[in-house]
Amino acid sequence: MIVLGIDPGLKNTGWGVIEQRGSRLRCIAYGCIATAPGRPDAERLAEIHAGLCSVIERYSPAEAAVESVYFSSNAKTAFATGQARGVALLAASSLAVGEYGPGEIKLAVVGTGDADKRQVQYMVRALLDLPRDPEPDHAADALAAAICHVNSRSWHAIGGERR
Amino acid sequence: MIVLGIDPGLKNTGWGVIEQRGSRLRCIAYGCIATAPGRPDAERLAEIHAGLCSVIERYSPAEAAVESVYFSSNAKTAFATGQARGVALLAASSLAVGEYGPGEIKLAVVGTGDADKRQVQYMVRALLDLPRDPEPDHAADALAAAICHVNSRSWHAIGGERR
Repeated sequence: MIVLGIDPGLKNTGWGVIEQRGSRLRCIAYGCIATAPGRPDAERLAEIHAGLCSVIERYSPAEAAVESVYFSSNAKTAFATGQARGVALLAASSLAVGEYGPGEIKLAVVGTGDADKRQVQYMVRALLDLPRDPEPDHAADALAAAICHVNSRSWHAIGGERR
Repeated sequence: MIVLGIDPGLKNTGWGVIEQRGSRLRCIAYGCIATAPGRPDAERLAEIHAGLCSVIERYSPAEAAVESVYFSSNAKTAFATGQARGVALLAASSLAVGEYGPGEIKLAVVGTGDADKRQVQYMVRALLDLPRDPEPDHAADALAAAICHVNSRSWHAIGGERR
């Protein structure tokens, strides 16, 4: 099974594609869609959507894992991230999509819900047997979401066949 | 010139299409895309996107006006609305898009930035010479955004040819 992990953000949307064969995990590809802050939101969102659609077309994942964040401190940031997550969910809406909170993802990958970004990068590298830490951290977070999705047996699907 | 107004929301996305000929405004159509709260976000967002794409295909607007809201009180609501606005901007990304704050829209339509929903509905009805108040209020707000866009000469485009 091929799984696409997405860490959505208006400025940086990380993505990572992994394959599960039996108990083995393999990294197929990862990257980050970075959009220029000075450009109109509509263009930046179209770029994120097109980028993710192209990743889905290229690697044909069966399922997707999207990081679900509800910022408690800053409504403006939440609004911007919400927009990016909206187009990410739209791009993945033909797949079975699981949503995971940041704590849930860290727990699945590092073993503790309050791990920092470098611990996540380190463990993603170890679990996927990568030659180096995945960069940028948005890509590492996306790979971590995909790993969490594969490892989770009690995942709550928000779309697709497995609902 | 045909203009599409959009009032994005995860539960209710209002839309309204108006035509400007010289100094005259005419309402072509309006409506509301309502999505079921129990369904997965990805499905609801896909429904909003498909609905708006179908409106754009049907009425061929040249430009779009989208209500821009930054909630200051509730980050969770801001996040949900942000998602809906993301797919709305994506649907309209081939058009010239203007963004207007709620106060700006009310000022353009009612003459005061703190008008209530019924005043907006009443003035939209009067300005477009409609036989009744447009319902639901989300559709009235979308028509108001389109009127604001047409009337505004100092609008700030966020996409399309007129940037």
